[in-house]
Amino acid sequence: MATAAPRAWERVLARIESDLLDGRLTPGQRIPGERALAGELNVGRSSVREAMRVLEALGVLRAQTGSGPEAGAIILTRPTGGMSALMRLQVAGRGFPVPDVVRTRVILETSSVSELAARTEPVDLSEVDGLLDAMDAPELSRQEFLVLDAQFHLALTRAAGNQVVTAMMSGLRDSIETYTGRIAAALDSWEDTANRLRAEHRAIAAAVRDGTADLAGERVAAHIRGYYAAATPEE
Amino acid sequence: MATAAPRAWERVLARIESDLLDGRLTPGQRIPGERALAGELNVGRSSVREAMRVLEALGVLRAQTGSGPEAGAIILTRPTGGMSALMRLQVAGRGFPVPDVVRTRVILETSSVSELAARTEPVDLSEVDGLLDAMDAPELSRQEFLVLDAQFHLALTRAAGNQVVTAMMSGLRDSIETYTGRIAAALDSWEDTANRLRAEHRAIAAAVRDGTADLAGERVAAHIRGYYAAATPEE
Repeated sequence: MATAAPRAWERVLARIESDLLDGRLTPGQRIPGERALAGELNVGRSSVREAMRVLEALGVLRAQTGSGPEAGAIILTRPTGGMSALMRLQVAGRGFPVPDVVRTRVILETSSVSELAARTEPVDLSEVDGLLDAMDAPELSRQEFLVLDAQFHLALTRAAGNQVVTAMMSGLRDSIETYTGRIAAALDSWEDTANRLRAEHRAIAAAVRDGTADLAGERVAAHIRGYYAAATPEE
Repeated sequence: MATAAPRAWERVLARIESDLLDGRLTPGQRIPGERALAGELNVGRSSVREAMRVLEALGVLRAQTGSGPEAGAIILTRPTGGMSALMRLQVAGRGFPVPDVVRTRVILETSSVSELAARTEPVDLSEVDGLLDAMDAPELSRQEFLVLDAQFHLALTRAAGNQVVTAMMSGLRDSIETYTGRIAAALDSWEDTANRLRAEHRAIAAAVRDGTADLAGERVAAHIRGYYAAATPEE
């Protein structure tokens, strides 16, 4: 990662990566204890702990509480949390401009939805349909609606089945959550917007079900761009 | 990030994120010292240090060496390193299947290259051209060629100008670097492959220059799929 000589915590990270690559460590397994790793790599225990936090933040392991033989961190592969943390912080620090985040969502979601619509085998859209119905409830607050809205988009992406795209989409969405919410809060007539979003969501799902790949892609692109257009003239 | 109560290092992370969002912290600035943050958030200094490592791994800050008023970590926004670490570890731990990584590269790069070709204003391809010429050198080893090859793809993406896509592409490429190298190493006739890749690279650049967006996209997609097809029957 760095061009300088790797520091203690980076050596611990590199060691875990190579153990994963070689299959010496696999998901669900407990990683070697702090003391063992520190001794083996000749680094301080605090450096091992720092590397463990980094791995936890990247979604590669989950710390266990307690001590004794049952303690120790478990390897897992849950990239979503790490992707979300990375993107949120980069958007917060202006490393990722919001318009680039929105454009990237358009690219990935258009592709997912078109690919899904183009499939010849039947696609399971039960989760998507459930969310569409849930969003019809008239008593939903803006915030509640937006939570379901985010789940709808993620469910469509998940149905397409690419795990890298799913993690990226989730991170992209999380990184502009504050921004998305601010747009909703600033709208004079939330009811009109919610009704438009409901209709657009159903039209996207219908195009996927009908197998019209280009139309499904165009609809999802227009839907995302339309929402952010009010606030960002660039989109 | 977690559903449980945030732990000490997570609270430090959340604090830095909100300081960035509010503009109290900006890129190039020094973040508050370890002791100050620990005191303010009522957490141990080791928790602050753990959070700093996480931020460093995510490309949000760079640790400074030395002590005194000049010491302390500097805020920066260099998402590439963090994205690369995250994706490499997730591929190593089987969280991201290699075919999904390849498919995601195809989606993002097709989109970048098509978008670039579709522009009406002139596009600066000098970096791309320089790399094409460098790859023509007959004495290049497989490894040297692959390094330039990676730079060529990244230069095309960078020319399109979406910083989120650029960071993602860089991470995707890094995460399957070992795998890419293994394919090259296993080829009987590297010379034939290198010549094919050279011709394909030039054809992609030509389509971008000619402004034929669909052709540029198709060529880049076929180029990436073709390379991995030998090793992964799914692609």
